[in-house]
Amino acid sequence: MTLQWVFSFAAGDEGDRELLGGKGAGLVGMTKAGLPVPPGFVIPTAVCRAYYEADRLMPEGLWDEVAAAISQVEAETGKVFGDPNNPLLFSVRSGASVSMPGMMDTILNLGLNDTSVQGLANLTGDDQFAWDSYRRFVQMFGDIVFGVPSDLMADVVERARIASGGVDSKIPAAESKALVSRLKDIIEGHAKRPVPSEPRDQLSLAVGAVFDSWGNRRAADYRRVNGISDDLFTAVTVQSMVFGNSGPDSGTGVAFTRNPTTGSPELYGEFLVDAQGEDVVAGLRTPQPISSLAAAMPDVYEQFVDIAERLESHYEDMQDMEFTVEGGKLWMLQTRTGKRTGRAAIRIAVDLVTEGLISREQAVQRVTPNRLEELLHPVVVAGPDDEVIAEGLPASPGGAAGVVVFEADEAAALAESGQPVVLVRQETSPDDFHGMVAAAAVVTSRGGVTSHAAVVARGMGKCCVVGCEEISVDYGQQLFRAGDRVVSKGEWVTVDGNSGQVLAGKIETVDPELDDYYETIMKWADEFRTLRVRANADTPHDAAAARRLGAEGIGLCRTEHMFFGEDRTEAVREMIMAPNSVARAEALARIAPLQTADFTGIFESMDGHPVTIRLLDPPLHEFLPGHEETVLRITDLKLRLRQTKTLDKINRLLNEINEKEEILAQIERLAESNPMLGHRGCRLGIAFPEITEMQVRAIFTAAVRCAERGVEVMPEVMIPLVAYATEYRNQEQVVRRVAEEVLAAHGLRIPYSVGTMIELPRAALTADEIAAHAEFFSFGTNDLTQSTVGLSRDDSSRFLPGYVMRGLIAGDPFQSLDTTGVGQLIDIGVERGRSVRPDLKVGVCGEHGGDPASIAFFQKAGLDYVSCSTYRVPVARLAAAHAALATG
Amino acid sequence: MTLQWVFSFAAGDEGDRELLGGKGAGLVGMTKAGLPVPPGFVIPTAVCRAYYEADRLMPEGLWDEVAAAISQVEAETGKVFGDPNNPLLFSVRSGASVSMPGMMDTILNLGLNDTSVQGLANLTGDDQFAWDSYRRFVQMFGDIVFGVPSDLMADVVERARIASGGVDSKIPAAESKALVSRLKDIIEGHAKRPVPSEPRDQLSLAVGAVFDSWGNRRAADYRRVNGISDDLFTAVTVQSMVFGNSGPDSGTGVAFTRNPTTGSPELYGEFLVDAQGEDVVAGLRTPQPISSLAAAMPDVYEQFVDIAERLESHYEDMQDMEFTVEGGKLWMLQTRTGKRTGRAAIRIAVDLVTEGLISREQAVQRVTPNRLEELLHPVVVAGPDDEVIAEGLPASPGGAAGVVVFEADEAAALAESGQPVVLVRQETSPDDFHGMVAAAAVVTSRGGVTSHAAVVARGMGKCCVVGCEEISVDYGQQLFRAGDRVVSKGEWVTVDGNSGQVLAGKIETVDPELDDYYETIMKWADEFRTLRVRANADTPHDAAAARRLGAEGIGLCRTEHMFFGEDRTEAVREMIMAPNSVARAEALARIAPLQTADFTGIFESMDGHPVTIRLLDPPLHEFLPGHEETVLRITDLKLRLRQTKTLDKINRLLNEINEKEEILAQIERLAESNPMLGHRGCRLGIAFPEITEMQVRAIFTAAVRCAERGVEVMPEVMIPLVAYATEYRNQEQVVRRVAEEVLAAHGLRIPYSVGTMIELPRAALTADEIAAHAEFFSFGTNDLTQSTVGLSRDDSSRFLPGYVMRGLIAGDPFQSLDTTGVGQLIDIGVERGRSVRPDLKVGVCGEHGGDPASIAFFQKAGLDYVSCSTYRVPVARLAAAHAALATG
Repeated sequence: MTLQWVFSFAAGDEGDRELLGGKGAGLVGMTKAGLPVPPGFVIPTAVCRAYYEADRLMPEGLWDEVAAAISQVEAETGKVFGDPNNPLLFSVRSGASVSMPGMMDTILNLGLNDTSVQGLANLTGDDQFAWDSYRRFVQMFGDIVFGVPSDLMADVVERARIASGGVDSKIPAAESKALVSRLKDIIEGHAKRPVPSEPRDQLSLAVGAVFDSWGNRRAADYRRVNGISDDLFTAVTVQSMVFGNSGPDSGTGVAFTRNPTTGSPELYGEFLVDAQGEDVVAGLRTPQPISSLAAAMPDVYEQFVDIAERLESHYEDMQDMEFTVEGGKLWMLQTRTGKRTGRAAIRIAVDLVTEGLISREQAVQRVTPNRLEELLHPVVVAGPDDEVIAEGLPASPGGAAGVVVFEADEAAALAESGQPVVLVRQETSPDDFHGMVAAAAVVTSRGGVTSHAAVVARGMGKCCVVGCEEISVDYGQQLFRAGDRVVSKGEWVTVDGNSGQVLAGKIETVDPELDDYYETIMKWADEFRTLRVRANADTPHDAAAARRLGAEGIGLCRTEHMFFGEDRTEAVREMIMAPNSVARAEALARIAPLQTADFTGIFESMDGHPVTIRLLDPPLHEFLPGHEETVLRITDLKLRLRQTKTLDKINRLLNEINEKEEILAQIERLAESNPMLGHRGCRLGIAFPEITEMQVRAIFTAAVRCAERGVEVMPEVMIPLVAYATEYRNQEQVVRRVAEEVLAAHGLRIPYSVGTMIELPRAALTADEIAAHAEFFSFGTNDLTQSTVGLSRDDSSRFLPGYVMRGLIAGDPFQSLDTTGVGQLIDIGVERGRSVRPDLKVGVCGEHGGDPASIAFFQKAGLDYVSCSTYRVPVARLAAAHAALATG
Repeated sequence: MTLQWVFSFAAGDEGDRELLGGKGAGLVGMTKAGLPVPPGFVIPTAVCRAYYEADRLMPEGLWDEVAAAISQVEAETGKVFGDPNNPLLFSVRSGASVSMPGMMDTILNLGLNDTSVQGLANLTGDDQFAWDSYRRFVQMFGDIVFGVPSDLMADVVERARIASGGVDSKIPAAESKALVSRLKDIIEGHAKRPVPSEPRDQLSLAVGAVFDSWGNRRAADYRRVNGISDDLFTAVTVQSMVFGNSGPDSGTGVAFTRNPTTGSPELYGEFLVDAQGEDVVAGLRTPQPISSLAAAMPDVYEQFVDIAERLESHYEDMQDMEFTVEGGKLWMLQTRTGKRTGRAAIRIAVDLVTEGLISREQAVQRVTPNRLEELLHPVVVAGPDDEVIAEGLPASPGGAAGVVVFEADEAAALAESGQPVVLVRQETSPDDFHGMVAAAAVVTSRGGVTSHAAVVARGMGKCCVVGCEEISVDYGQQLFRAGDRVVSKGEWVTVDGNSGQVLAGKIETVDPELDDYYETIMKWADEFRTLRVRANADTPHDAAAARRLGAEGIGLCRTEHMFFGEDRTEAVREMIMAPNSVARAEALARIAPLQTADFTGIFESMDGHPVTIRLLDPPLHEFLPGHEETVLRITDLKLRLRQTKTLDKINRLLNEINEKEEILAQIERLAESNPMLGHRGCRLGIAFPEITEMQVRAIFTAAVRCAERGVEVMPEVMIPLVAYATEYRNQEQVVRRVAEEVLAAHGLRIPYSVGTMIELPRAALTADEIAAHAEFFSFGTNDLTQSTVGLSRDDSSRFLPGYVMRGLIAGDPFQSLDTTGVGQLIDIGVERGRSVRPDLKVGVCGEHGGDPASIAFFQKAGLDYVSCSTYRVPVARLAAAHAALATG
């Protein structure tokens, strides 16, 4: 035998989780530590791999080794596998190195058959127990190994259970015996073969079933969605049975070494007297708090507390344990790192440092960055009776209740009056911005997690659910439908941005609180990280929130929102309708002071920190009303004209028709087939230098104003959508000329820099040409993903989920960076940019700036900073620390 | 003197055109060949470069060298520069190494002043001639050197000229003298300085003016648009004057050594007795054919014929010569390679090979590939009186007349009845395809040369003008406006696809004819080229035309047109509206036989040649009516419903409303913000495998049918818009499964291959992953340009022309490949693809496949073939030969 196919718990290497699986490694560890573990052995993942490589044949020599391992367990337990009088029974479980639902779980009591059940009865003097155990085995075997529909069997058992008062262990022996017989018939009828009576046959079929379950659809889907390799394979643990259901001095329980919800250092768990683990899981009986064990069996409790402490010290982390007490003796069945809430994760990590168990680096690495979101947003406390109206994508976390409205103006008006509103739209556009600001939550029926609604809501830290495909909005009737449910304007709903649910009525939410543990872990994270973290913020209010959450500057200040708002719309439309550059400049002059005021507020909030301002980016038609809307409006006006009699009214109508028709003509002139690839970004500033001039003048007028008041301003002017170095040069010259004019007029020197977004493949590929002039790069990974992958962010939500389901891609490339494709362009861009300008500052300002997996890539790519939605700043800080610790 | 700033005609190196300019090199060459050339010298481009480098200061030592050169000319001519009695006069001309309009052209008679004019009169005994010459000099000097508006001066001269019977040389001396005085006043009044009387001052100002004209706006624009480097600079030729206007034994002429229109080997040109070159150019007198010289001055003619032959032999190409006869003596003033039509270029090249002057390689290189277009399409023969209604971009060459229609259906109906029609649209969509097929020409008011109309028209070889910005189409009133001009449906217009003009009325067109010279040059081109040339063809008709034009297969057969057509629309809409895959498959089954028939015809046309078939590519909403159109239709139906009384009609209206509303709902579900980046390409086939299955079944059913008839079929199935290798795998499996099913059912083996378009940056960047499975790549450079540069083909025509004007880009990247950006991705794609599959077949099927400059790049990139619009095939064949000869 060249390979060792089987490891007894006493012989394995507990560090080799990949070989032994998580369960196996835990049992080996506990056994070696001298804890009371029922003897057994592990069939490692290597066997499963060999099984698949040989087209589902077990490797040669396996069963000889299994026989030897069984002999050893027989020697330790004094029982014999297959002995009719003193039968050794096993539990058989799957165990991959990562926790994974979808695989076969557990078969208990393996080894029983029609004769040894009698031996067990004689041995324990408990007929009822022996037959109940046998019935459980047969049922589990039929279900799991033969795939007999579990309903068929559960039905039969349920009737007997109810007749016995609802508890398995109360089913009389004779009844259990009859059940076994009936179950066997069902199984044989369905599987066309009997449950084998030979224990070794039972074992080999059970092991094969575990291996087969690795390849089943549900497990494969789970792996695909969670990015788990198919090559890990599963191990099988075979462990001698102990029985928690053998009387009042027996029982079973699960416990955490610390509170998994709050993280407080107290043993936390449940215990059930005279029961097997199954009973706890199935919820058939209500377990007692773990403290009940202290009262019932003080010695056992004391031993268990001691073991829990030893396990936590050994594994240096909070443990989740399963145990059984059989006749007053404690047996440990499993230990693993316990799952916990974000809040608990932080507290446990900090406490473990205080207790000297782990380092601060380890503590930081123990907290999953995405879990921080939970701490920053209100949480909806929905009960099981609350009605879920629809479910969409959780685009921006938090929870809020409000009355439904469908128009941004109405949202703003109602919110003004103090009424919380939920804005429900098919999708949102920049025109809806003021409504989104006013709303407590935003819901859309279309779009993915990087749609306009999602991006803007996340930027504001506003609860938002998008892509509720069930919802169909009827603006005409001011209601929406979700299946048969109709929700009209004014009805209360509650939006859960964490789960993506839209619930009926006004449901309670709980506000978050940032405690000292949070502050401590973030301080440590900041010490370890090397990437700077900035926020994407467009208003003074967002900028202030970003500073509070630890942003070290603004990486993306979008200026398009500064073109919206009641006080600006008219001037913006005049600007767009301007017949020449003089008229355009006049209209812009009316917008300038408002933008100056916006920039002033932002600079003040970011005193001493850099602010990257992107010049106007969206195509101009976004600032005009829709085509259809305008056509319908004109049609309506013309109908009214026919019915109007007074000359004065006719004149007014004619004027309005005229004006609308001019707007319509401009809308048609500006209409684009693919606005994403159209006349936007620096292409606007090149065609209309007046716009760039106005914006730069506003930026530097604000900067001068702040500097004169002692605010330290660090403006970075960013030119968007550059494809050619010549475009950059064209706009850079305008920026520098106007900036110098403003500074010279005030006799001031303010350090500033000019740079560009890298958001088109061509820009990355010619980064050397661009960096010859640009002082900084900011990768706009949203648009770079769109252009590199040829995917519209707004449209792709319709088919990308299907891609994930079919395993074509691991996940939405707008959520987590496509490192294989888009990542190459980032590497190329950084390398070529720095080849001509070694001190080129490089950051990222797409949605990926707040995604931990993407941040790990940005660290490796050598970026200087990431910039993300305000409420992702803490996540990014922690993720950056993880990235630095992983590479450092 | 370390640098030689001046070269006498006898001393220069005629091969160094960059230094001497084209004109200078020709004069040097002729002088050295012993031909009669008025002595003179060249101030080379190096001086102009030095002038600009020194901020418009002439280099030191220049004037000393000029003085020495003048002395030499004085010695040769026996005249003295500035001598009042025996004045040496010069012509001063600019001369860059490439022909370039926009620069200063010529100053004649330089050296005259108020005293030497009298000397000239005494010397020639011709007062009238002397004062006319002086007047010409003063006028040209004022215009060209001092920039005096030429109208001001021409006005004054014109009045005198008319008074003298319309001929300059008839203006009496006294009148010329008065004119000189008046011109001097005008010049001094305008330029604030007088025309210098010192000849050396005249010369230095004239040379400076030539150099300055290199940098003027018009010249700079010309260079930018034509991709000429600013670093070439211009030379100045200074040549002693000879006078064709000195009597009846004098004259001036221009001639080509061969006919520049037909290429036939005959001296071709014009001669004018007693005239200066100016008179010929200005068209003030009508010149005689060159044969008139033979009659008037037989000796001179014989000498000229001999010189012409010697020049052609020397330069090994057809020459364009200027000459002057002064008192019976022939003087050669210029020789250069003559411009010619495409037809002449071919004949001359072939003849020169026959005559043993050049090699076949040289002959092939002598023909500019783009000129072949002229030979393949009808040409509009418009006169000066024909009314040009509008002018747009010449999108597809040729010429045709027809009556204006605005709807595709109407175009089809009228054409059916034998009436030639011109389809005029704002823009076209796939819905207009049948109308475009039927029309004699297509005109659009929007879109660039790669818009839908342009691409489709080019593919069909149909005359097409796009982007006629002046035209505003009013579909409602069925007319279009261009400025004040209104053209209604039914009016005759003629479209010139070569010039981009839309003309009023029915104008004659001349049909092309391919002669033996064409066949010869193409045969040679085919011998030299290594790139294969295929055609983009979608119908049996186009495929047959492509074969006739030399296509070696089809590189892109788009299948979307097979979904249009009266017999298919209904089934296609049913397919799109299908609630599930079964209904979808049923609708598809009705389309399948029609597609099979299409493929059968194409395979037959391409017997023995590969046919690359692209699976369905456009988003499904392209097959549905427009949103606004449908909304308006429903509104209209509802209005009619209100006015309807009979139950039967009400029912019918309700049914129709219902149906339209269902379609509207589907349109809304399928609507996309950026269709180019939306649910199209292989993304369709992945979501609806039934579509792929139907298409593959149709392809292989047709292949089997043809093979059974002895046709050699070579199908290549192409999967579009792949971004991920997994997408390719998904669709490849469907293709292979269905293909094998069809072949197995017929017991046939047909060799076929499966491959993909590379049209997204991500595909190029991950070409190794894709090529692990794909057997061929075809670069879709249209879409690859769109995604790499972030430019929508349909929308960018609005701002790209501005980019070219501002010098930001050299030209439209959809016409000629952006080798710097997109080219990198092609190099990466080829290299990575072949790294895993060395025999990977790689082609290109974008519009660039027919562009000579792009073909040169594709040759270097190592592609196997290019595929282009049918009527570009000859261009591509010749361009491929050029590319091979350039690199080979």
